[in-house]
Amino acid sequence: MTRLIIDTDPGIDDAMALFAALASPELDVAGLTTVFGNVTVEVATRNALALLDIAGRADIPVARGATAPLAMDYLGAIPHIHGEDGLGDGGDLAEPSRPALDVSAAEFLCREAPGATILAIGPLTNLALALRLRPDLDTLVEQVVVMGGNALGPGNATPAAEANMWNDPEAADVVFGARWPVTMVGLDVTHQVLLPGDRVDAVTSGDTPTARLLARAIPLYRAFLTKASGQDGIYLHDPSAVAYLLAPGLFRTKRWPVRVETQGISRGKTWPNLGGTDDPAPPAWQGRPLVNVCVEVDAPGVLDLITARLP
Amino acid sequence: MTRLIIDTDPGIDDAMALFAALASPELDVAGLTTVFGNVTVEVATRNALALLDIAGRADIPVARGATAPLAMDYLGAIPHIHGEDGLGDGGDLAEPSRPALDVSAAEFLCREAPGATILAIGPLTNLALALRLRPDLDTLVEQVVVMGGNALGPGNATPAAEANMWNDPEAADVVFGARWPVTMVGLDVTHQVLLPGDRVDAVTSGDTPTARLLARAIPLYRAFLTKASGQDGIYLHDPSAVAYLLAPGLFRTKRWPVRVETQGISRGKTWPNLGGTDDPAPPAWQGRPLVNVCVEVDAPGVLDLITARLP
Repeated sequence: MTRLIIDTDPGIDDAMALFAALASPELDVAGLTTVFGNVTVEVATRNALALLDIAGRADIPVARGATAPLAMDYLGAIPHIHGEDGLGDGGDLAEPSRPALDVSAAEFLCREAPGATILAIGPLTNLALALRLRPDLDTLVEQVVVMGGNALGPGNATPAAEANMWNDPEAADVVFGARWPVTMVGLDVTHQVLLPGDRVDAVTSGDTPTARLLARAIPLYRAFLTKASGQDGIYLHDPSAVAYLLAPGLFRTKRWPVRVETQGISRGKTWPNLGGTDDPAPPAWQGRPLVNVCVEVDAPGVLDLITARLP
Repeated sequence: MTRLIIDTDPGIDDAMALFAALASPELDVAGLTTVFGNVTVEVATRNALALLDIAGRADIPVARGATAPLAMDYLGAIPHIHGEDGLGDGGDLAEPSRPALDVSAAEFLCREAPGATILAIGPLTNLALALRLRPDLDTLVEQVVVMGGNALGPGNATPAAEANMWNDPEAADVVFGARWPVTMVGLDVTHQVLLPGDRVDAVTSGDTPTARLLARAIPLYRAFLTKASGQDGIYLHDPSAVAYLLAPGLFRTKRWPVRVETQGISRGKTWPNLGGTDDPAPPAWQGRPLVNVCVEVDAPGVLDLITARLP
């Protein structure tokens, strides 16, 4: 069983990813760390606690993380996608039954992540801060699976950048440059994992607390994505990273060194050097570790896997 | 018949493009302007004059252009691809029969490009300088066809950038932002136009002055590209832009505003905003004209067309 810490900014697809992970016997969710991103870190923390209550897992600790990126101000929440409350604004959310831990997300990662896998589905600020607190952490963590980035295709936050990278490119460049094994589950694959409307209806029609939460959360997200993609359905960005953990064989990956642009109109773009690490790699890519980049996905397989974990 | 000015840095594929254009009755080549790029502007100018002598077209004027990009030093020639002499180092080149004009490339464009098409197959410095000399030039030129850039795929000079953009991103951003109709024939299509080795042999086996020039020029280029691509053959980068002029129906294009990155490790990357010019375009793309970007190509059609023009 994989001991797992989920770093998250819930967020509607974060909620789906969390519920799918909690329903997976292969995964032992040992803690959640929260981060600004889809919503402020205050809202993200409230939501993480509330979602665990709804899933009947108030035993799982939550550590509140970064309020803002490493090197700029927080760009702000995206209520047109995730709602003012981060969970689709579909009615009242019960207050969490308990507070977050007294330790920060970065400290929690330093203490609990050795031997564990980190599933990072928000901006990568907490992971970068943890590496600054404990520089050998990248030799102790089992692996890091990141939802974020776009290696070969366009961005979604800007023409160049995917949203999690756009929210903290400096942190992402630290995480992709560290020694831990990193897998990037980016838009190259998640933009192929579209759950069509009729299957969204099936996921949200159940008479369970988690299905009821998704039924309140998903309509706003679905309306936004249907407008953006021109197809009725929702991209399973964050759940795709859970699917990678459960069934990596559903993905084809390439091993490339990856830099994250911090400058100009390309800020937040993840750049693989497709030539690998052979000489002459361009200077900016020299000495960088290889990142396991998802480039193809069995999308029907991921949809079946995730929907089966959302009863 | 299209009145055409070719801005070029010959360069082996430049020579192929030039010979194909000169052999095309649809095109009236009214002048060549030269620019640094594959080689220094001195070598490019010498080669342009020599190639016209070889083609029996010493009547076509040549204007020498920029020595260096708008905003940096010249990055230098690439003799491992085009040779020290820019034409494959395959034996002596005869000295040109005449000198270049006394006017600069930018002045020549200001005077001669109104009503004409510009085929730009090197860095775009001369075109940007011409716009600075004559700010209404972009309303007078018929169209500009650029070999350069990479809209959706990776670069070739760096992980981000195609070589002509990399050599002068500031100039390219000026050219893609001007009011003339611009078509971008970039790596998205030219990396699909690979002339296989046996067809290279056919092109270079003729007993004509131009075929003999190509027979001396191409082997170095072929050896480099075969090593780089893993397939025996040569990419017809610059000739593909000639093919666009002759048969635009061989290409599928999309109309997007395009910015060229000038910062960071993405310097030289051409960024289309795939969302078009609708609100809310990201600020850097707002108000930019639509560029006609080639995204698909009938590669066999281009290969047949170009080889038929290289007797």
